[in-house]
Amino acid sequence: MNLCGGSWTKAKRTQDIVDPLNGEVFLKVPNTAMDEIEPYIQRMAAVPRSGLHNPFKNPERYVMLGEVCGAAAREMFKPEVDDFFIRLIQRVAPKSYAQAGGEIKAVRTWLQDFSGNNVRMLAESQGLPGDHVGQSTVGYRMPFGGVSVITPFNFPLEICGIQSLSAVFMGNQCTTKVDWKVAIVMEQFLRMLHSVGLPKSDIDFIYCDGPVFNEVLLRGDAKMTLFTGSQRVADKLAVDLKGKVKLEDAGFDWKILGPDVMDVDYVAWQADHDAYGFAGQKCSAQSMLFMHENWTKPDVDIVGRLARLAGQRSLKELTNCPVLTWPTEKFLAHMDRVLAIPGASLAFGGKELADHTVPPQYGAVEPTAVRIPIEALEDPPSFEVATVELFGPFQVLVDYKEGQQSKVIEAINRMPNHLTAGIVSNNPRFINE
Amino acid sequence: MNLCGGSWTKAKRTQDIVDPLNGEVFLKVPNTAMDEIEPYIQRMAAVPRSGLHNPFKNPERYVMLGEVCGAAAREMFKPEVDDFFIRLIQRVAPKSYAQAGGEIKAVRTWLQDFSGNNVRMLAESQGLPGDHVGQSTVGYRMPFGGVSVITPFNFPLEICGIQSLSAVFMGNQCTTKVDWKVAIVMEQFLRMLHSVGLPKSDIDFIYCDGPVFNEVLLRGDAKMTLFTGSQRVADKLAVDLKGKVKLEDAGFDWKILGPDVMDVDYVAWQADHDAYGFAGQKCSAQSMLFMHENWTKPDVDIVGRLARLAGQRSLKELTNCPVLTWPTEKFLAHMDRVLAIPGASLAFGGKELADHTVPPQYGAVEPTAVRIPIEALEDPPSFEVATVELFGPFQVLVDYKEGQQSKVIEAINRMPNHLTAGIVSNNPRFINE
Amino acid sequence: MNLCGGSWTKAKRTQDIVDPLNGEVFLKVPNTAMDEIEPYIQRMAAVPRSGLHNPFKNPERYVMLGEVCGAAAREMFKPEVDDFFIRLIQRVAPKSYAQAGGEIKAVRTWLQDFSGNNVRMLAESQGLPGDHVGQSTVGYRMPFGGVSVITPFNFPLEICGIQSLSAVFMGNQCTTKVDWKVAIVMEQFLRMLHSVGLPKSDIDFIYCDGPVFNEVLLRGDAKMTLFTGSQRVADKLAVDLKGKVKLEDAGFDWKILGPDVMDVDYVAWQADHDAYGFAGQKCSAQSMLFMHENWTKPDVDIVGRLARLAGQRSLKELTNCPVLTWPTEKFLAHMDRVLAIPGASLAFGGKELADHTVPPQYGAVEPTAVRIPIEALEDPPSFEVATVELFGPFQVLVDYKEGQQSKVIEAINRMPNHLTAGIVSNNPRFINE
Amino acid sequence: MNLCGGSWTKAKRTQDIVDPLNGEVFLKVPNTAMDEIEPYIQRMAAVPRSGLHNPFKNPERYVMLGEVCGAAAREMFKPEVDDFFIRLIQRVAPKSYAQAGGEIKAVRTWLQDFSGNNVRMLAESQGLPGDHVGQSTVGYRMPFGGVSVITPFNFPLEICGIQSLSAVFMGNQCTTKVDWKVAIVMEQFLRMLHSVGLPKSDIDFIYCDGPVFNEVLLRGDAKMTLFTGSQRVADKLAVDLKGKVKLEDAGFDWKILGPDVMDVDYVAWQADHDAYGFAGQKCSAQSMLFMHENWTKPDVDIVGRLARLAGQRSLKELTNCPVLTWPTEKFLAHMDRVLAIPGASLAFGGKELADHTVPPQYGAVEPTAVRIPIEALEDPPSFEVATVELFGPFQVLVDYKEGQQSKVIEAINRMPNHLTAGIVSNNPRFINE
Repeated sequence: MNLCGGSWTKAKRTQDIVDPLNGEVFLKVPNTAMDEIEPYIQRMAAVPRSGLHNPFKNPERYVMLGEVCGAAAREMFKPEVDDFFIRLIQRVAPKSYAQAGGEIKAVRTWLQDFSGNNVRMLAESQGLPGDHVGQSTVGYRMPFGGVSVITPFNFPLEICGIQSLSAVFMGNQCTTKVDWKVAIVMEQFLRMLHSVGLPKSDIDFIYCDGPVFNEVLLRGDAKMTLFTGSQRVADKLAVDLKGKVKLEDAGFDWKILGPDVMDVDYVAWQADHDAYGFAGQKCSAQSMLFMHENWTKPDVDIVGRLARLAGQRSLKELTNCPVLTWPTEKFLAHMDRVLAIPGASLAFGGKELADHTVPPQYGAVEPTAVRIPIEALEDPPSFEVATVELFGPFQVLVDYKEGQQSKVIEAINRMPNHLTAGIVSNNPRFINE
Repeated sequence: MNLCGGSWTKAKRTQDIVDPLNGEVFLKVPNTAMDEIEPYIQRMAAVPRSGLHNPFKNPERYVMLGEVCGAAAREMFKPEVDDFFIRLIQRVAPKSYAQAGGEIKAVRTWLQDFSGNNVRMLAESQGLPGDHVGQSTVGYRMPFGGVSVITPFNFPLEICGIQSLSAVFMGNQCTTKVDWKVAIVMEQFLRMLHSVGLPKSDIDFIYCDGPVFNEVLLRGDAKMTLFTGSQRVADKLAVDLKGKVKLEDAGFDWKILGPDVMDVDYVAWQADHDAYGFAGQKCSAQSMLFMHENWTKPDVDIVGRLARLAGQRSLKELTNCPVLTWPTEKFLAHMDRVLAIPGASLAFGGKELADHTVPPQYGAVEPTAVRIPIEALEDPPSFEVATVELFGPFQVLVDYKEGQQSKVIEAINRMPNHLTAGIVSNNPRFINE
Repeated sequence: MNLCGGSWTKAKRTQDIVDPLNGEVFLKVPNTAMDEIEPYIQRMAAVPRSGLHNPFKNPERYVMLGEVCGAAAREMFKPEVDDFFIRLIQRVAPKSYAQAGGEIKAVRTWLQDFSGNNVRMLAESQGLPGDHVGQSTVGYRMPFGGVSVITPFNFPLEICGIQSLSAVFMGNQCTTKVDWKVAIVMEQFLRMLHSVGLPKSDIDFIYCDGPVFNEVLLRGDAKMTLFTGSQRVADKLAVDLKGKVKLEDAGFDWKILGPDVMDVDYVAWQADHDAYGFAGQKCSAQSMLFMHENWTKPDVDIVGRLARLAGQRSLKELTNCPVLTWPTEKFLAHMDRVLAIPGASLAFGGKELADHTVPPQYGAVEPTAVRIPIEALEDPPSFEVATVELFGPFQVLVDYKEGQQSKVIEAINRMPNHLTAGIVSNNPRFINE
Repeated sequence: MNLCGGSWTKAKRTQDIVDPLNGEVFLKVPNTAMDEIEPYIQRMAAVPRSGLHNPFKNPERYVMLGEVCGAAAREMFKPEVDDFFIRLIQRVAPKSYAQAGGEIKAVRTWLQDFSGNNVRMLAESQGLPGDHVGQSTVGYRMPFGGVSVITPFNFPLEICGIQSLSAVFMGNQCTTKVDWKVAIVMEQFLRMLHSVGLPKSDIDFIYCDGPVFNEVLLRGDAKMTLFTGSQRVADKLAVDLKGKVKLEDAGFDWKILGPDVMDVDYVAWQADHDAYGFAGQKCSAQSMLFMHENWTKPDVDIVGRLARLAGQRSLKELTNCPVLTWPTEKFLAHMDRVLAIPGASLAFGGKELADHTVPPQYGAVEPTAVRIPIEALEDPPSFEVATVELFGPFQVLVDYKEGQQSKVIEAINRMPNHLTAGIVSNNPRFINE
C-alpha cells in the first residue's frame, strides 16, 4: 500500500507482480495514476526549507531517531523477524538465503551504527572565532527540505532502507519509490519502523511507474533526489531536476590479474562470486576480468577454474538466479554481439537454462563468459559493445600479455562513470553484499 | 591572451571592452571562435581519470603547490604588486579602492591559508581496520580529471583565482573562463603564478562567449564545472552537463530588523553597506529589508537614516558605481514594476545619475529603495516582482507590524535558492568582501 | 569476587561492607592482600606494547567489541535487567530510583553509541601523501598496553563501566579497581558482559585497598591509569606513576546568578538539584552559589526558595542520602569552620538528621547552606576554608552587590583544578547524571 | 639576554659558553640566580585561567598570530636571514650547513602552515544539538594559562621555536628555557618575531640552570610544561609538577633489516645517515640495527658498507660533530661496557678523533658500531647496557638468523619509552631532520 502523510492508502488500479521463478501472479500492488499524486506533491512542497528538524528546530528528533534505530536493530535481532525479512526478499528478488541474509545483517548493523547518540552526532557543527569579540562563525548541517529516494530491485531492503532513513536523520522529509517488483519489502520495513517509534509522516512511500514519479518530483519541487539505477534514467533526472540529484553509480566494474600468480583458489572463488553472485545483479558485479598470460597457462588455468565454479551454480539453490532486467533473448543477443568481436570466443555458459519456469519477461541463463584479446578493445565499436553494463551473469575475459599493461590502463581510463576499482576500496558498511 | 597547454596565444578576432566610466574602448581581448577551440577540447579530454596528481601519483605536486601559494602570497605583499592589482580591478570593475583592496587581501590571506603543507593536508585520507588481519579500508580524495571554472564580472580576482587554484590543489586540470569584461585581471594573476612556479599547463584560460565555452565543456567532457553566475545559465548548464556542475549561488539576500531597536547607527551603516556597496553587485548584496514598526517610528527613522547614507554615495569616489549587467533603462523599468505593487512607494533614489559618462549598455542610477507593506508579499505576482534578483543598487523595504512575524517567516520560506541568512554565517575566508 | 586472567577467585580475607542506611553488615567482599597480587602484576606486565589489538593486529576485535556493545545494550533494555541494576546501585549507593535509573540509561545509551561499527570507527587513521611517490605518512591510534582504571563510590556503574570498556576498545588490557563499598555493581556488570561475548581476560577486576593497588600499578608497570577521585590521591598517583595518569577531575563547582533575575522557579529548582541531589555526592555537585543582590530582594528571595526545596528532601525517599565519605561529626565541624568566617551565617540546614539509622562512619545531615559576603573571600584563609570540596549536601552562598562582579571573577580564577563552568558545557553523553 | 614581561634584561652573573670546536669562550650568557626569578614567577602566576585569548576573549589575537607567522616566514625567506640563522646554529651546535639549513626550512614551512587563518582554525569548536530546543553542547579548545617549554641543545631553533609558538597559539603565556649552550638562537628568533608583530609579553625567555627553572615552575604554578630531553629529568619533573608535564620523548630508536635483501645502497646510506648524522645527536637517531643473516653475507656485507660510509665522515666538514653531552672518556667507557657483552666485537670506529681541538667537556670520537648476537639481549644486564641511550655517534649491530624473528620482537617489546618505529611514521612536518 501507499503511505502519504501518515496514512496507508490504496490506488484505484493495481499492478500484477509475477513470481520470478514461475511466472505466476503472486502479488498485486498499487499502480498509482497521474491523477492520484496530488497529495504527494502537496506534502513534498509543503516541507519548509528548515526541514522537520535541524540544530535549531526540534532537536529532540535527533535523539528520537537514535532511539528508533536502536529499537529497530533490537527488533531485527529477533530470529523470527530476521527470518521473515530474508524469506520476503527471496520471494521477490530470488537470491540465496545467505545473500538475502547478508542484506538483513547489513541493515541491522547500520541501524546499530546510528543508535544511541549517533544520529545527533551527524549534526555536529564546527565553529571558529571571528575577528572581534562577540563574533563567531559556525557551520551547521542543514536539511534540504522535501527530498526523494529512488531505488532498484536488486537490494530490496538495504539501499532504500538506508538511504531513506539517512535523509530523515538530517531533517529531511523523504518520499521513497522502490521498483514495484520488490517494494513490498520496504513497505514491511516501514511498518516495523513505525511500530518502534518512527513518526508515520517522516517518509512517504509510493508504488507507481517512472513517469508518474517524475511528475511528483517536478511539481513537488524535490530539493534533492538520491537515485540508484541505470545511467540512462540518471541522465534524464539530472536534466529534469536541473542537477538536484545525486547518483549512486552502478558502474561497469572490472578486476585485473597482474603478472604475479598467487592464491589461485581464492582468486578464482572471489572472481566467480563477484561475477555471478545473485546472477551478476549486484551494483558492484564484476563485468570484465583482465588476465595476464601467466594466469592462463595450463598449470594455473584460471578460465577452467572459473568454468568449473560457474558450472556448480544452480537455479534450484538460487546460486544462479532469474535475471530481472534482461530477458533471455536479449541476453543471448548481446552475447552474440560480443562474440562477433574479432578474436572473441565463448569461454563457458552461453545457453538458456534447461527445465526452468522463469517467465519470459525475465532471463534464465547459464553463467557466461566471453573471451577476447586486449587488442580488440582498441577498436571503438568493439570497446563499446564489450563494456555494455549487463545486469546479469555475464563477464568478458580479456587476455593480455607481458608488456601490454599500458593497454589495460588505457582501456580502464576510457570506461565511463566509475572510480578506479583497484584504488578506492569499498565502504565497510556494505562489505557483506 | 588565451592560455592553452602552457602557451599564450591570440584568437583570430578580438572583442572590444569599453571603459564602464566613460564608454571608450580601452581594451581588446581575444574573441575565440568555434573553430579555434579544438586544442582546449583535446586538452580537457586527455586528462586521465587519475588527474594530474593524487595520493598515489605525483604527490610531490602537493608540496609544490603549497610552495607556489607561499611564494604568491609573498609576491602580493609587495606594495607595488598590491597596488597594481587594485588599480587593475578598479579599471574593469569600478569599485572603491577599499573594496578592490579587500579582494587582494582576501586572495592573499587565502594563499597563506594553503601555503606550507596545507595543500598536502587537503589530501588527508581516512583509514579503518577491516574485519580481518591484512584488510583495511581507506578513503582517499581523488580528483575528477578535466574540470572547469566559470566566473562573473563582480569579483575579477577573488572568485576565479580561488576556485581555479582549489581545483588544481585536488589534482584536477582546470579550464577557466571569466566574464571577458574583467578577465584581464585573472590573466595577470596567472602570469604572476607562473613566475612563482605554477606549471603553465595546470590551468587553461580562454576568452570567449558562453555558447563557445559550452561547446568546450560538452566536447571536452568536463568532469565537473564550478559555475558562479545567474540562475538561468546555471539551469542550462545542469541540463547540458547532466548534473555535473556545482553552482555557487548568488541568491536573493535579506535582513530582518526585529522588535528590539538597538545600535541604530551601526545597523543603518551596515544595511547601507550591504545594499549599496559596489552598487549592489556583490553576490551577497542585500535585496530586501524587513522592518519591524519599532524601527520606523520618528525617533528611530531607519528609512531616513538609510536615505541620508545613500545620498552621500558618489560615482566620483566610486562609492556608487556603474551597474554592469542592468542598463539604466532596464533598472528603472523594474523599479516601476515594483512601485506598481499595491501599497508601494519610493523611499529614496529612483533616478538616473546626473552628469555621468557611463555608456548606455551599463547602468548609472541612484541608490534606490522601494517600500511595501508585508501584506503585498502574499500576492504571488507581487511576490515574484518584489523578489527579482537585481544586480544593482536597489532594495525593497518591507514594513511589518508586531504580530506579523509569521508573515515574515512565510515570505522567507518561499524565496528560492538560498540559505536562511540569519542561520548560516558566511565563511570567514570571504568576510572582507 | 576477583577476576584475573579470566578466572573468578576469592581472596584469603574478606572485608565487611555495611548497609549505609542502617549500619548492618550486608556484604562481604574480597580483601586482597599484598601477597596475593602477583598474578595481577604478571598479567599487566605481560601485555605487549601492541596491546590486545590495534589496526594491524586482531582487527576483528573491533567488530567483536561493537557486537558486545550492541548485545549488552539489548540486555539492559530488558525490564528485569534494568530493574536489577537500579536496585543493586540503590543498595550500595543510596540514591533515588530516578537517580540510579539515570545511571543505567546513561550506560545503555553509551553502549548503543559504540555498537555496530562504532568501535571500529574509533580506530580511524589519517594519512597524508609524502614528498615522493610511494611515501605516505599515516597516523594510527595505538593502545598503551596494560592500563588501569580506578573509580569512586558515587557512580558505581557508569564511571567504571564506561572507562574500563573505553580502554579495551582501543586495544588495552585493563585492570579495574572500584571503591569496594560499591564494587559489586561492576562485578555484576562484568558478568553480564561476559555472557554477551566479552572475552573474560580483557578486564581484570580486583577488590583491595589503595596501597595494595598502588603496588599492582607500580610493579605491573601500568602504562596509563585513569583515576577518578580526590585531588590528594591523584597527586600521589601522578608522582608514583611518573605522570602516566589521567585524572577525571571532581572539582569545586559553582554557579553565578547575574543581575538579570529571570525564571526564578526554574533556577531555584536547578540549584537545589545541583547542590543536594544524591546529597551533593555527584562529581559536578554545586558547592558555591554567587548571588547578585537582585536575587536576594524580598520579592525574589532565592535563599528562602532554596530553603523550602531543601526542606522537602527526605532520607526515606532517598531524596536526601547518607554521606559516604564525610561522617556527620566531620561534616558539622567543617560547617562550623565556615561559619567562623567573618560575616558568615547559617542559611538553612546545619543539623544531624533525626531518627536515622545511618551508621557512624557515614554522614546523616540536613541539606545545608552557609551564607557569606563576597568580601570574605578576599582573605586567603577564609577563601581556603570556603572552597574546601566537601562531598556532601553543603553549599556556600556568596552575596555580591552591583559593581562587585570583578570580585566574583577574581575569586573564580583562584579556584584550583577545574574549568570555568559557565564556558565549557558538559558532554551530552553524561547529561542525565 | 633574558626577556620578562616584554623587557630584555641581564642577570647579575654570566655563564661562559665555550666554542665546541676549540674550547674557547666565545659567548657569555645570563646565569639567572634564585634571587632573581621573582618577576618570572609573578608573570606566570598572574595569567588567568582564561589565558591571553580563547574563543571568547581577544579572538583578534588568532588573526594577529596568523599574520605574525606569515610575516616571519617571509622574513626567513630572505637569503640573508636564512644564512644568518644557519651560521648561528652552526656556531653553537656544530652540524653541517645542510643539517642546520634543514632546521630553518622546517621552521619556515611550519610558520607558513600556520599563516593566514590557520591559527584561527586551531580554535575550531564542535557543537551538538541538545535534547531540547535552545540547548546545545559546544566543545571549545581552551588554554591552560601560564605554561612552560624546556628544550635541549640539539635543535636550537626548531624544537623551542615551534613549541613556544604552539603554546601561544592556543592562548597560553609561555616561559621558555633552552639549554644555555644554544639559547642564543632562540633569543634571536624571538627578536625577529617581535619585529614582525609578536607582542613582546607573549613569551618570557630565561637563561638559567635546571634547579633555578624548577623553582620558577613550582612557585609560578605552571599549568603545563612541555619538556624535551632526558628521561631522568622528565621523571623528576613529572613528580615535581604532579603530572602536569608532557614529554617529547627522545627514545631509543632501532631499525630491522628483514630477510628480503633489497636496495642495499639506499639502505646503507639511510642507516648511516640515521645513526651518525649530527653525530647521533638527533632525537630520532638510530641506536640499534637488527640485521638478518642475509644482510651480512659476503656479497651484501652491510657492515662493510656502513664502515665505509662512516669512514668518510669528517669533523672538518661537520659531517662528524662534537658530542655535546658525552665527553670522549665517558663515551669510550660506555663502548667498553658494550664490548664486554659476551659475543660482542667492535665493527668499526671506537677511537678518539685525531688532531682535534674539541674541549674536554665535549666528545670527539669516530662513528662507532659494536656488533653483538641476538642471544646476548636475552641476558637482562647485557640488555640494559646495550640499550643505553647514548646521544652520540654510536650504534649496536645485532645479528639474528632465520628463525630468530621472535627474539627480535621480544627484544623490541622490552625497550621502554618509545613507539614501535616500524609502525608509526614520522610526522611530515619534521621530515627534513
